[in-house]
Amino acid sequence: MSMTEPGSGFQDSMALRAEGFVLENIPTVDVDRREASLVPLADAVRDLVDATIRTTVDNEELDAVREGVAELVNRLRASQLPGPAGVRFNSESRAWNWGNAVVGLGNAVAPPLQTVHDPSGLVHAEVNLGAAYEGPPGLVHGGVTAMLLDHLMGETASGPSQRVIFTGTLTTRYLRGTPLGKVRLEARIDREERRKVFVVATVSDAEGVTVEAEGVFIQPSWAAPDELC
Amino acid sequence: MSMTEPGSGFQDSMALRAEGFVLENIPTVDVDRREASLVPLADAVRDLVDATIRTTVDNEELDAVREGVAELVNRLRASQLPGPAGVRFNSESRAWNWGNAVVGLGNAVAPPLQTVHDPSGLVHAEVNLGAAYEGPPGLVHGGVTAMLLDHLMGETASGPSQRVIFTGTLTTRYLRGTPLGKVRLEARIDREERRKVFVVATVSDAEGVTVEAEGVFIQPSWAAPDELC
Repeated sequence: MSMTEPGSGFQDSMALRAEGFVLENIPTVDVDRREASLVPLADAVRDLVDATIRTTVDNEELDAVREGVAELVNRLRASQLPGPAGVRFNSESRAWNWGNAVVGLGNAVAPPLQTVHDPSGLVHAEVNLGAAYEGPPGLVHGGVTAMLLDHLMGETASGPSQRVIFTGTLTTRYLRGTPLGKVRLEARIDREERRKVFVVATVSDAEGVTVEAEGVFIQPSWAAPDELC
Repeated sequence: MSMTEPGSGFQDSMALRAEGFVLENIPTVDVDRREASLVPLADAVRDLVDATIRTTVDNEELDAVREGVAELVNRLRASQLPGPAGVRFNSESRAWNWGNAVVGLGNAVAPPLQTVHDPSGLVHAEVNLGAAYEGPPGLVHGGVTAMLLDHLMGETASGPSQRVIFTGTLTTRYLRGTPLGKVRLEARIDREERRKVFVVATVSDAEGVTVEAEGVFIQPSWAAPDELC
């Protein structure tokens, strides 16, 4: 889970953090049990998103399936959070952000990206992007690669200690189209200058790099070590 | 529909275009009829994505709903395209890209963004971003704003005549967090230098601009007017 937040409204963001990061009085075993039911449901919904895009069944069947979906929505909405899921943690330091748009295991919009932090400092992820992530025919939407890079680079700047960090500027260079299918993302910290962290990253297919990116991330003064302020 | 494609592998992209843009022998009236059934289904799936994120029903009910979703997936997969949806058009110049990750009406990953091209050259969109687009608690994921900007700016560079254009570089500056809810995006061409098109854009909430972006888009030499080559 990354503490990355865009923007520079640091005082505002601190308040949002206090509001949005919710301490839940739930034992870890129950969090794990919830996840074990939620993740297969979200995976099924990912399947449904894909099937809705690719189906060629007749219009009457689309209408009938729509009614079935609406019934399932009603069952889930019988009891629900009043707003978005936010980021939650318990007193045993188990944290969960199932609703996150990029890595949320319970969010069918997220592929979800599963990031690996190597001891060397390299942060990487492999993800299989299907029909739901298409832009030009057969290619990953350029905005989707930008979205995945933003997240991976934020996590990279935040680091294994999950320091608080904000995205300042993100620059993405498209070298060629990225075909749908298996994609690899890599990021690492290039350098740090006081409270600024410079991260470089790539997106690759089997033939090599398709997109390059550079990001500048900022540690807010209230969260940075004293010697940097 | 934008012809925007990322990258600079122009010859490759030309082949992909030939492959991916599919001429369908379907009268417009039938395309419209299909859309009239597909869009409500995709909207219901969007609801299901949101309900899955926010539901607090018990684990047994999650399991039961998952089974219901799997059954609906099977019904849709009874007949389907072998791969992604691509971009399709008929001989009456009706085009549809229902599967696009940002604007696809049939893709529940897409909000979908609905862009408006003003005669003045301003291209804008208003979109209501819910729980599925969350990054930091209560805020739009920074990667989501980058994704939406990429698409809007590509459409802007492409212009009303939908000229063929590729994203070269996209730079996004985060001024502060963007709250979930109603968001406005605006883009316009800043200047053109031979085959390069410079586009500027913003994301705003009710209080003003939250994200600024600049993009460089490139007309491939095979598609540009002779005097630019």
